[in-house]
Amino acid sequence: MKKSFLIILFLTSFYFSHADDGYRLWLRYDKIDDAKLLAQYNKDIAGIKFNSVSLILQAAKEELLKDLQSLLDKKIPEQKLIINGSIIAGTPASSIDVKNFFSVNEINDLGDEGFIIRTTSVNNKKVIFIAAKNDAGVLYGVFHFLRLLQTHQPVYKLTITSIPKIKLRLLNHWDNLNRSVERGYAGISIWNWHTLPDYIDQPYIDYARANASVGINGTVLTNVNANSLVLTKDYLIKVKALADVFRPYGIKVYLTARFSSPIELGHLKTADPLDSLVREWWKQKANEIYSYIPDFGGFLVKANSEGQPGPQNYGRTHADGANMLADALAPHKGVVIWRAFVYSNETPTDRFKQAFNEFNPLDGKFKKNVLVQVKNGPIDFQPREPFSPLFGAMPQTPLMMEFQLTQEYLGQGTHLVYEALLFKEVLNADTYEYGKGSTVAKVIDGSLDNHELSGMAGVSNIGNDINWTGHPFGQANWYAFGRIAWDYNLSAATIADEWIRQTFSNNKNFVDTVKKMMIASREAVVNYMTPLGLHHIMGYGNHYGPAPWYNKAPRADWNPVYFHRADSIGIGFDRTEKGSDALAQYKPEAAKKFETLATCPDKFLLWFHHVPWTYKLKSGRNLWDELCYKYNEGVDTVRWMQSAWNNMKKYVDDQRFNEVRMLLSIQEKEAIWWRNACLLYFQTFSKMPVPMQYEKPDHTLEYYESLKFPYAPGNG
Amino acid sequence: MKKSFLIILFLTSFYFSHADDGYRLWLRYDKIDDAKLLAQYNKDIAGIKFNSVSLILQAAKEELLKDLQSLLDKKIPEQKLIINGSIIAGTPASSIDVKNFFSVNEINDLGDEGFIIRTTSVNNKKVIFIAAKNDAGVLYGVFHFLRLLQTHQPVYKLTITSIPKIKLRLLNHWDNLNRSVERGYAGISIWNWHTLPDYIDQPYIDYARANASVGINGTVLTNVNANSLVLTKDYLIKVKALADVFRPYGIKVYLTARFSSPIELGHLKTADPLDSLVREWWKQKANEIYSYIPDFGGFLVKANSEGQPGPQNYGRTHADGANMLADALAPHKGVVIWRAFVYSNETPTDRFKQAFNEFNPLDGKFKKNVLVQVKNGPIDFQPREPFSPLFGAMPQTPLMMEFQLTQEYLGQGTHLVYEALLFKEVLNADTYEYGKGSTVAKVIDGSLDNHELSGMAGVSNIGNDINWTGHPFGQANWYAFGRIAWDYNLSAATIADEWIRQTFSNNKNFVDTVKKMMIASREAVVNYMTPLGLHHIMGYGNHYGPAPWYNKAPRADWNPVYFHRADSIGIGFDRTEKGSDALAQYKPEAAKKFETLATCPDKFLLWFHHVPWTYKLKSGRNLWDELCYKYNEGVDTVRWMQSAWNNMKKYVDDQRFNEVRMLLSIQEKEAIWWRNACLLYFQTFSKMPVPMQYEKPDHTLEYYESLKFPYAPGNG
Repeated sequence: MKKSFLIILFLTSFYFSHADDGYRLWLRYDKIDDAKLLAQYNKDIAGIKFNSVSLILQAAKEELLKDLQSLLDKKIPEQKLIINGSIIAGTPASSIDVKNFFSVNEINDLGDEGFIIRTTSVNNKKVIFIAAKNDAGVLYGVFHFLRLLQTHQPVYKLTITSIPKIKLRLLNHWDNLNRSVERGYAGISIWNWHTLPDYIDQPYIDYARANASVGINGTVLTNVNANSLVLTKDYLIKVKALADVFRPYGIKVYLTARFSSPIELGHLKTADPLDSLVREWWKQKANEIYSYIPDFGGFLVKANSEGQPGPQNYGRTHADGANMLADALAPHKGVVIWRAFVYSNETPTDRFKQAFNEFNPLDGKFKKNVLVQVKNGPIDFQPREPFSPLFGAMPQTPLMMEFQLTQEYLGQGTHLVYEALLFKEVLNADTYEYGKGSTVAKVIDGSLDNHELSGMAGVSNIGNDINWTGHPFGQANWYAFGRIAWDYNLSAATIADEWIRQTFSNNKNFVDTVKKMMIASREAVVNYMTPLGLHHIMGYGNHYGPAPWYNKAPRADWNPVYFHRADSIGIGFDRTEKGSDALAQYKPEAAKKFETLATCPDKFLLWFHHVPWTYKLKSGRNLWDELCYKYNEGVDTVRWMQSAWNNMKKYVDDQRFNEVRMLLSIQEKEAIWWRNACLLYFQTFSKMPVPMQYEKPDHTLEYYESLKFPYAPGNG
Repeated sequence: MKKSFLIILFLTSFYFSHADDGYRLWLRYDKIDDAKLLAQYNKDIAGIKFNSVSLILQAAKEELLKDLQSLLDKKIPEQKLIINGSIIAGTPASSIDVKNFFSVNEINDLGDEGFIIRTTSVNNKKVIFIAAKNDAGVLYGVFHFLRLLQTHQPVYKLTITSIPKIKLRLLNHWDNLNRSVERGYAGISIWNWHTLPDYIDQPYIDYARANASVGINGTVLTNVNANSLVLTKDYLIKVKALADVFRPYGIKVYLTARFSSPIELGHLKTADPLDSLVREWWKQKANEIYSYIPDFGGFLVKANSEGQPGPQNYGRTHADGANMLADALAPHKGVVIWRAFVYSNETPTDRFKQAFNEFNPLDGKFKKNVLVQVKNGPIDFQPREPFSPLFGAMPQTPLMMEFQLTQEYLGQGTHLVYEALLFKEVLNADTYEYGKGSTVAKVIDGSLDNHELSGMAGVSNIGNDINWTGHPFGQANWYAFGRIAWDYNLSAATIADEWIRQTFSNNKNFVDTVKKMMIASREAVVNYMTPLGLHHIMGYGNHYGPAPWYNKAPRADWNPVYFHRADSIGIGFDRTEKGSDALAQYKPEAAKKFETLATCPDKFLLWFHHVPWTYKLKSGRNLWDELCYKYNEGVDTVRWMQSAWNNMKKYVDDQRFNEVRMLLSIQEKEAIWWRNACLLYFQTFSKMPVPMQYEKPDHTLEYYESLKFPYAPGNG
């Protein structure tokens, strides 16, 4: 016995010392490495009673069997009879035990996707129920249960009820048909359109598993800068193949619809949404799509924005465009997700205000199956933005949140930035739509305005890199997005805790340290890139690195100088009523704290005010000194993260340890680059010295301005 | 004891049942699954005596220790003293045992890279020597020894001496700086230029290991359609980082040199190779490169070909261009590899003849450190080509062979085609340079004309797909290239045997069946694409699928109709003296068999003759019927491969089994497509019926002509 134990120990340690390429994400399900806990689990779990009468239940059961075998290092048998330690999974329709045990109300309250996990007794046998009203709920319950085991939670006394707060929890892939990914930093698209539908790449399946495990229930396969070809038969057959892979994991497929498709594909003379031939074309196209994919989710549309065609080309409104598509999809229960990310160079208004100006008047004009998808902030996924004033301003329209998981403005493929804090900050912001407590989250989940439809989208950070997201910690943002879309009350720390345990290790020292790193990382990137409310001062085109000096873009509001407005007096964009008055788009109570220099939180200061260099902040430092302080604080935090990570070597496999170590070193280099370039440039306006205690820039401003990166990734 | 055995068995079987993503290539080193053999190995191998005093020896030793532990399932200890079962590895400089045991001559005969593996006795202890003159030889010996174990060869009586036949054994990556890969079908470039030099991706290391394991000792990182930016400091620092990773594995780095770089980077007015400023620029550039990479291999140059700049832009010859670069590299012992793949639209000559016409007169004009790299055939990597007439026609110039591993014309990413047979066919071809027996192989290895330099290049099929080559069997072509470059006397079957055993399984049934599939696959692709000597009838631009009808290319010799010349009388390109007289470029004895319809082998028929549709072939069938027969034979072989593979399910992990199954199904579909499209098209000339016994096309010719693939991969 002792001998066999030693042998197992040896094999196990050998297995763990293997390099880990990160492909398995948080779905590792390695054997529980705490012997006492493993013994307990093996007592708690003795068998499975799981009647899998549908594709989804079958996927759930396979997942449960496979992962339990791996976690518990033994095959958990299926049983017809209930024994002590049975896991009983199912719906009232699939499982007589579920039907008998739970009340009709209790089950109905779970809705389409909720679940119960409960440790209880049936016929004097101790069992664990994973019960739901619908199959999808069982799937989510299974993954939740597996998460409990992977995070070393006790399972002998479970009383969990979990219901998603948001209905549509979608990834948006900005993936092109040639496999390039706009703002993608993890290789090329995982969709290999060329070999579809005949070749089902293993990552398609594991992508579906990963999404299901965090509750993501839909995916928009194609770039919002859309290509109409994806709506042709050749491609719909490929889309169908993916939909067939995803269906057992509760995931619906959506496509982006190029507004001019009736012209490009249907050879019509117009794409006018009020033209009857155009309307008929879309109706037929929808019918065709549903003939391949009966549960097709719907269309995501970027129209009349950054060069995309749209209804305004024909003197129609966004509502006209969206409603036409909505009519085509309605018979099939599909939805239209219409993006509010619009701004026009011809409008001389502050870009901040344009989405609101265009969409706010359309409230109430959209059909029932339309959601308007709004980026979290008014500009474009900056390290920190105030919430978009559209939230709380369109009570008659279900507004869908658009977060960006891919780190376009957050260090791209090489910076460790945990985004859950950003997501939470926005969701917790108060719109004051109906007085205090009218948080963005309550707008989004539909509760504030009583919408049936609700949605949250994350612009995917997934590519064909072996570890999916390039940076091993990029996985955490995918994970956190799903978890928050399911339940935005989960704290960023809780989600980080879960993710670290599943992805790396349950070791307390490791979990505590890495959690601290993740939590610190978001403010770090704000500090070394855009402290105090600076925004949109990155490189032109590729958005890589700092370029606050840039002023040569073909439109003013693509230029950093448009946004920071530095001059000899100060820096920042005056959006008070003396300035662009963007603040007027917020409810007065929400605007109030931003309105005056005295009340405006430092972190939003330059979003709303042009502040004199000598203005004294709450810290006692003047603005220039505070800017120097913040930029250096950002760099310092990265250095702290580096040293913290270096102490984690013994808890991580060599491969991932080294990957993160190298990436943190790039992050440090680039944080310094941001700090030096920005301070040197802003100093040409402030004419004030960088306080003695800080590192001196190792290059001149001219040097930083001369840097070129013709092949920086992500331009799509 | 019995219990622990069962436990091991369980863990092992669980491990093996895991999906396999193919990342490990042929370097799997899983535990020997034959218990008897494992016991024998564990008797034969008891310790390691390996003094690793250099980077290469250190890499070799680490590889040996790690892989032996994995293969033998126990840690093989290092020892200071010789014991029974010691592996003694080293050179006379690193190992006193090697120095004492082997004669100076025996060691010196091994040259820079050869090795000896010998089972013998030292002080009455049975030992296994892995000995070499230089460190690289030890590395190659270690990998050879590991290969013996992985292929289940006995090691108790080894007397191996192995010396590579070719000096420069290089991969050519047609990889662009934006990570697109010209003619790449396995994702994007594994070189992530953006994150270099700071981020060393694990695949860089495993790429080096894989290459070293088959003797590849150099890699050209960049596309022959070159970008001068790679010669700037920013990129050279990145190149250096890769060179540093590869050096311990005996691999040198080469770059492609864009001929106009002195203009683009140096701001000179000309790139004339006789201009002294230009010459000085290249000299300085070479000095700069060697300051970063002291063992830089040299330049690969595509000049005055398909739009690339070159010496002819200035009225100079290829020799002038090559010699200028050679002078710059010579002080550093670098070489210039100058490609002979040139053809000009302005020359009305048969494209077949142009490389010969340009290069043959230059024989004797190149500097000592120049090799001329010649594609295996006169046109462009077709499924079958006669050998290039340049082989045997430039006795004063070391000619380097260029094979294409990436399957541009061989089914691209989805067809199983084992290329070793193609390589061997070309290498075994007789040039008759000095009478019978003057094979292409002997031209290439330098033996025929007494050259010190010799080389063989394989255009890489590697991308960032998890399994490196997209198709799991694409790995075999990478493997076979390295093995053949090391020793072209190895048979295609032997190499397949080795590869299958290392990559999949040593099971006899499996090895025999899969070997048959691989051997059959090359003639299959010839038959369903270009039987009887047809060539260059694929899709325009992307080279995907059949397009024998295509005649709209901007130059005549990019059009399929230029090459097949089908008309009402017959089909094929008359290259006899009545036609283009390309045959005159061969030595008369080599040309003889091609000259007449009666003596020309069927497989080269339409390469050299315009043959009447009714001409009766050796089979007794007329040409049209034979064409129908061959196209159908190709499809039938693919179907046989499908059924053979389906019987292999029990020997392979699920993932790779399914991948190959799906790919074979695509291959079948595309083989049918090729057959149908080509026969329907050629039938418009032959006006003869497809014999009754064959499948009827399921589409019209118009349908096939209408197909479009705007996003087919590989256009770079």
